[in-house]
Amino acid sequence: MNFTGAHILSINQFQREDVDRVFAVADNMEPYALRKRVTRVLEGAILGNMFFEASTRTRVSFGSAFNLLGGEVRETAGFENSALVKGESLQDTARVLSGFSDVICMRHPQPGSVADFAAASRVPVLNGGDGANEHPTQALLDLYTIRKEMADKGRDIDGLSVAMIGDLRHGRTVHSLGKLLSLYKNIRVVLISPKELTLPDSIVESMRAAGVDVSISHELTQSIAAVDIVYSTRIQEERFSSKQEADLYRGKFRLNQAIYTQYCQPNTVIMHPLPRDSRADANELDSDLDDNPNLAIFRQTDNGVLVRMALFALVLNVADKVDDFAYEVRWYNARQNRITP
Amino acid sequence: MNFTGAHILSINQFQREDVDRVFAVADNMEPYALRKRVTRVLEGAILGNMFFEASTRTRVSFGSAFNLLGGEVRETAGFENSALVKGESLQDTARVLSGFSDVICMRHPQPGSVADFAAASRVPVLNGGDGANEHPTQALLDLYTIRKEMADKGRDIDGLSVAMIGDLRHGRTVHSLGKLLSLYKNIRVVLISPKELTLPDSIVESMRAAGVDVSISHELTQSIAAVDIVYSTRIQEERFSSKQEADLYRGKFRLNQAIYTQYCQPNTVIMHPLPRDSRADANELDSDLDDNPNLAIFRQTDNGVLVRMALFALVLNVADKVDDFAYEVRWYNARQNRITP
Amino acid sequence: MNFTGAHILSINQFQREDVDRVFAVADNMEPYALRKRVTRVLEGAILGNMFFEASTRTRVSFGSAFNLLGGEVRETAGFENSALVKGESLQDTARVLSGFSDVICMRHPQPGSVADFAAASRVPVLNGGDGANEHPTQALLDLYTIRKEMADKGRDIDGLSVAMIGDLRHGRTVHSLGKLLSLYKNIRVVLISPKELTLPDSIVESMRAAGVDVSISHELTQSIAAVDIVYSTRIQEERFSSKQEADLYRGKFRLNQAIYTQYCQPNTVIMHPLPRDSRADANELDSDLDDNPNLAIFRQTDNGVLVRMALFALVLNVADKVDDFAYEVRWYNARQNRITP
Repeated sequence: MNFTGAHILSINQFQREDVDRVFAVADNMEPYALRKRVTRVLEGAILGNMFFEASTRTRVSFGSAFNLLGGEVRETAGFENSALVKGESLQDTARVLSGFSDVICMRHPQPGSVADFAAASRVPVLNGGDGANEHPTQALLDLYTIRKEMADKGRDIDGLSVAMIGDLRHGRTVHSLGKLLSLYKNIRVVLISPKELTLPDSIVESMRAAGVDVSISHELTQSIAAVDIVYSTRIQEERFSSKQEADLYRGKFRLNQAIYTQYCQPNTVIMHPLPRDSRADANELDSDLDDNPNLAIFRQTDNGVLVRMALFALVLNVADKVDDFAYEVRWYNARQNRITP
Repeated sequence: MNFTGAHILSINQFQREDVDRVFAVADNMEPYALRKRVTRVLEGAILGNMFFEASTRTRVSFGSAFNLLGGEVRETAGFENSALVKGESLQDTARVLSGFSDVICMRHPQPGSVADFAAASRVPVLNGGDGANEHPTQALLDLYTIRKEMADKGRDIDGLSVAMIGDLRHGRTVHSLGKLLSLYKNIRVVLISPKELTLPDSIVESMRAAGVDVSISHELTQSIAAVDIVYSTRIQEERFSSKQEADLYRGKFRLNQAIYTQYCQPNTVIMHPLPRDSRADANELDSDLDDNPNLAIFRQTDNGVLVRMALFALVLNVADKVDDFAYEVRWYNARQNRITP
Repeated sequence: MNFTGAHILSINQFQREDVDRVFAVADNMEPYALRKRVTRVLEGAILGNMFFEASTRTRVSFGSAFNLLGGEVRETAGFENSALVKGESLQDTARVLSGFSDVICMRHPQPGSVADFAAASRVPVLNGGDGANEHPTQALLDLYTIRKEMADKGRDIDGLSVAMIGDLRHGRTVHSLGKLLSLYKNIRVVLISPKELTLPDSIVESMRAAGVDVSISHELTQSIAAVDIVYSTRIQEERFSSKQEADLYRGKFRLNQAIYTQYCQPNTVIMHPLPRDSRADANELDSDLDDNPNLAIFRQTDNGVLVRMALFALVLNVADKVDDFAYEVRWYNARQNRITP
């Protein structure tokens, strides 16, 4: 795809070469994200960070990524009393807001809303999550993490085995990651969930059609025995009709260090889109895994900044100029001296 | 008026020469707002963007205008649990907040509050809307748009005919625009509203005293036949005692392409302060007008950035230095390639 | 203490020499805070301004302080639907958010939460207030103000007499200021409060153990007769079980110009952590004191910016580089021309 000026709305837009391009640019962003260097390439540019649904983590990740390229951020952090409640169409909102910035990131609770918005926007729009539909930057950062973790082990994405665990029905991140893995060769995916929360058939079928070896399981320990990556997810309580219904599934398929040691291959990578539910009745990933060097969950969120920087640089066509406006960091770089697992 | 260090609180502060000065500076801002060039003239300056009433559109417009001059923005986006609920006076709030920034934009639901705040502020204050009272930057951007649209037709503001349509009683933008038009010569204004929602007598009288030819109508089609501009407005539901009462007036005086073609002069400019209510029972400006090149409503909101940049530059006395700290935009400029009507 | 990379969590971390270091750096920040000069030393750095409890004043003060050093600010302005309500631990939140910024300021309603957060953060954390526990930057700015006000009178902190007035039980600022004063010599403190709202015994005892001459009073006028500073506080209504209970104490110990003239020594400095409750039934500091040149309450809040700039510069180890990236302000400096008491 031609990234310059493009909207990034769905993982379906990406071919394998597009993913490679994003990851190559993301790699180049590392010295900036690690605060070894500063770049001012986007000095004077404005991101409209329009979160019509609250999400501190994702909103700040997008905003920081833009700041790290030298740009400014104007934002909205919730639905509030915006013009939409006065009867304004999403198209009008897009025409207005796209006059205020050079690129927009948008999150909105309604599936499809971000694409509608983008159709009327005069600047590129990045989907920051539209309800249960898409969250493409999360899928890209997940796959970027898989690539990076496996590269350390001398492997690439082709040929990997991935176990996806938990609420596979509602978790949009596993939907998108499944699609993205389908672009690669000899992938094996084990889907581990309660019977009621399996991955939607349409996604399973499209993965199989693309050549992915998909198996389905409702049991944890045997199913994680021969995979390279376990990808755990949270019960998406907010998508159930009641807390009681969600409680039926909460706390199944918990992973902790004892289970990991007994059943997993050595160095199996542990991932999670975060937030992980650490309350006693959920505890999908026990905190006793926090010292396990294979726990990649915080590297995932760190990688999110790299991937979002890469997407901004690509749609604004500055990926090749980032280093031209760079200099050494002047301040104490705490992050280089406090690395967590 | 001497703009340097001035508070911009009311449209009553402006003489015709002051308006001309704002518009001349706004014209110079165009290359920056269109993202052809970047200026850093206000690098290091801070705008306190204090919205004690939520308004995504206006808040982001002010913030982006300041960013486009190179400055930073600190802001508040709603009433929340601020110090005011702990009994702090608006004067104390002003003394405190004016220590944190170089200029303040303030919106507050209470009429007169922004002027009270400004009286205690140590930095210039721009009124971003104080309840039903004033919203001077909206009136300036409306008149700036009129001037620009008519200049394309070889006309200037003197001698224009303007139809104002809708809830003229509650809409503060038509109140302010009426006052501003009174500064010009040979202006004709047709006021079209339900009998219960006419423009307040005091404003009509002051316009007539200034020489404006004001006529009053309760019917749409004949009244828009011989005007240069139709300025439509939303029923201000939030100012009525009930939704039921507002519903009595909603959906009267709808303008769509068929009515426009049948009754309006060719090339009559269509304006609206936005948001337009696009719900079926309101639909003041039908979306079938969106392809009409005379629909200026999104050019209005774009012009708002220029006018706000101009006001910031004037009160901070950098209008003549903007070009001295400028360079070419480095990134892909989507806006130049996606012009909407 | 070694400030570089340190968390600033509690006033207990500070020795006298540490306080001196902060104040010396704060003095150097004055030309930047007064907008005579701009520094870009932290250009490219990001502050995560994480206010999980709303506080416009303190949030904007921290954010502006960081902007004044040239850095960018990403922020959260309330508890909202953050990941914490989905069961994420504060430790996970810290690991994630510390990947997005170079330094974090955090406010959170729960005592101890900021220290827990800091323990898992990869970047330095400044406590912006953790419930009733600590608010160290407020204590530092209070003492900085005392030092500055008394320096104008040829005095230093050693040997001062301070009256603390009001809700001494709940006001965390007087708790912290008491501790901080204990680092100095020959301090006399008069505690003036209702019997039910006295300073906690543990703090009184530790002050006395440090050599402070502490006396306790339940009467205002005689007790303020021989002090250098009167430090008034608000009844912390939000910490009482009901408004009715708070009302029992509201409006006691009011200070106004008549009482000041009759009972205080000439030039006694008047302080208050703000917001002051100016409602008729409270009115701790009457507005007739606003013209009294000894009213230092707005100089306090201005000094807060200096102290916060100093702390950022120290933990990021740029205190000695600030002037190396500086230039003259380009815009009209309103603040130099509108000095309020």
